[in-house]
Amino acid sequence: MSDFSRLAINQYTTLHQWSLPQAIEGYARNGVHAIGIVRDKLQEVGVAEAKRLLRAHDMTVTCVCIGGLLTASDDYRFRANLESTRRVIDEAAELDAECVVFVAGGLPEESRDLPAARARCLEGLAEILPYAKSTGVTLGLEPLHPMICAFRSCLSTLGQANDWIEVLGAGPELGIVVDVYHVWWDPDMEREIERAAGRIVSFHVCDWLLDTTDLRLDRGMMGDGVIDIRRIRDLVEATGYDGYREVEIFSERDWWQRDPDEVVAIAKARYLSDVI
Amino acid sequence: MSDFSRLAINQYTTLHQWSLPQAIEGYARNGVHAIGIVRDKLQEVGVAEAKRLLRAHDMTVTCVCIGGLLTASDDYRFRANLESTRRVIDEAAELDAECVVFVAGGLPEESRDLPAARARCLEGLAEILPYAKSTGVTLGLEPLHPMICAFRSCLSTLGQANDWIEVLGAGPELGIVVDVYHVWWDPDMEREIERAAGRIVSFHVCDWLLDTTDLRLDRGMMGDGVIDIRRIRDLVEATGYDGYREVEIFSERDWWQRDPDEVVAIAKARYLSDVI
Repeated sequence: MSDFSRLAINQYTTLHQWSLPQAIEGYARNGVHAIGIVRDKLQEVGVAEAKRLLRAHDMTVTCVCIGGLLTASDDYRFRANLESTRRVIDEAAELDAECVVFVAGGLPEESRDLPAARARCLEGLAEILPYAKSTGVTLGLEPLHPMICAFRSCLSTLGQANDWIEVLGAGPELGIVVDVYHVWWDPDMEREIERAAGRIVSFHVCDWLLDTTDLRLDRGMMGDGVIDIRRIRDLVEATGYDGYREVEIFSERDWWQRDPDEVVAIAKARYLSDVI
Repeated sequence: MSDFSRLAINQYTTLHQWSLPQAIEGYARNGVHAIGIVRDKLQEVGVAEAKRLLRAHDMTVTCVCIGGLLTASDDYRFRANLESTRRVIDEAAELDAECVVFVAGGLPEESRDLPAARARCLEGLAEILPYAKSTGVTLGLEPLHPMICAFRSCLSTLGQANDWIEVLGAGPELGIVVDVYHVWWDPDMEREIERAAGRIVSFHVCDWLLDTTDLRLDRGMMGDGVIDIRRIRDLVEATGYDGYREVEIFSERDWWQRDPDEVVAIAKARYLSDVI
């Protein structure tokens, strides 16, 4: 018996092929009933229609991607991204999503001041948290791989995410998203996953290709790379995490070029052989 | 007055253009009197001839690159790399080099077991250290960026390097090489540089390009990227480090394609404007 009840697919995995309606219909047709939603795709169709489709296909929303990018030194841009994050929170509340994936943001334009970017993001988080709390939506801090620190995320390690939660003294409105791609290399991974116990709100899988050709858009399918995914899943689930295992693959050269039904079928097979 | 007395250039910076004799002569001609040596280039000319040229051009050797790669699970390969590291130590001793840059090695072929690779490297280090000690040569552990963890270095952070030195209970035969490229993103960088006080044996500079196109061979010239080099230099030198600031640029698409005299001239200018 193959149990796919805890398998989710993040819409990024079929980014070039499917709109949100197509993804909802396509994942469901393949027996997958949980989806991580990409906000641009959501806006194409609107929240009301998305809600109707999700219900019609018995589909749970794991997360909405993304909120955050709160590192701008420029006040206008900082406020605009705070406001945009509030709107993602609203959408996530409407869709009963389990969390909003929070991406910190990289260095502001022309800046080399990484400590300042990190402080700015913390300032933004402190401001947005009460709003998240009031709506019942959880923000999931996702540390992203250090190789995309400059342009995408000054939040680079699980340790830093744990520190931020402590510094902010946040309640359940702030959690952590663990993606194997971003944390597998970290010598402190084991300790910091343990430390995140009770805080992990989403768990993402894909693989690290030995011949990675792009810093952001060249992830591999589980089993095609070098990450010991099962070990990380064990560590995450040993903390009590019993939520979805979500496949999220950014892959310009390979998976985004394939028939999306094939992508989903292979993801399902690899879920059995390399994840659970 | 421009003081270049603490400027060194690592031979990787002109890898495609100059042999070792050409680099020694070329750096000296441009008023740079310290060189980091690439072992392949050394072997083309031999240690005796290199020694003669270094003396003739009043050139100090900062480091020999590289020893290590001690993660093979296969015993034959592991022993071969230990032996090769012993030979690099011999060469470094002959050349009065300040250190041998130690690169840990990535995952062994077909392996996903990162903790095992790390343990294997520690085992190899424990075996090689008495030999380094007996020759008076310092091994400099260089943590390399997490993005090259899989194929090059399971030693990924300064914290991990500090931990390894503690675990091994090593004396001055084991130090740390700080390269801004590998550590600039690390939220623990400041703390771990402080912790490395007295252990830092080499300090390398280059820059992180916002549009990095390759995981290993696309570094930028100081000033062309987003690293706050001066801040990191201040942190390193606040620990008491008073050695060379060594320019080391791997750059397939840009600096390895240029006239090497131009590369050295620009490195000197950027040393003044962006390093010291």
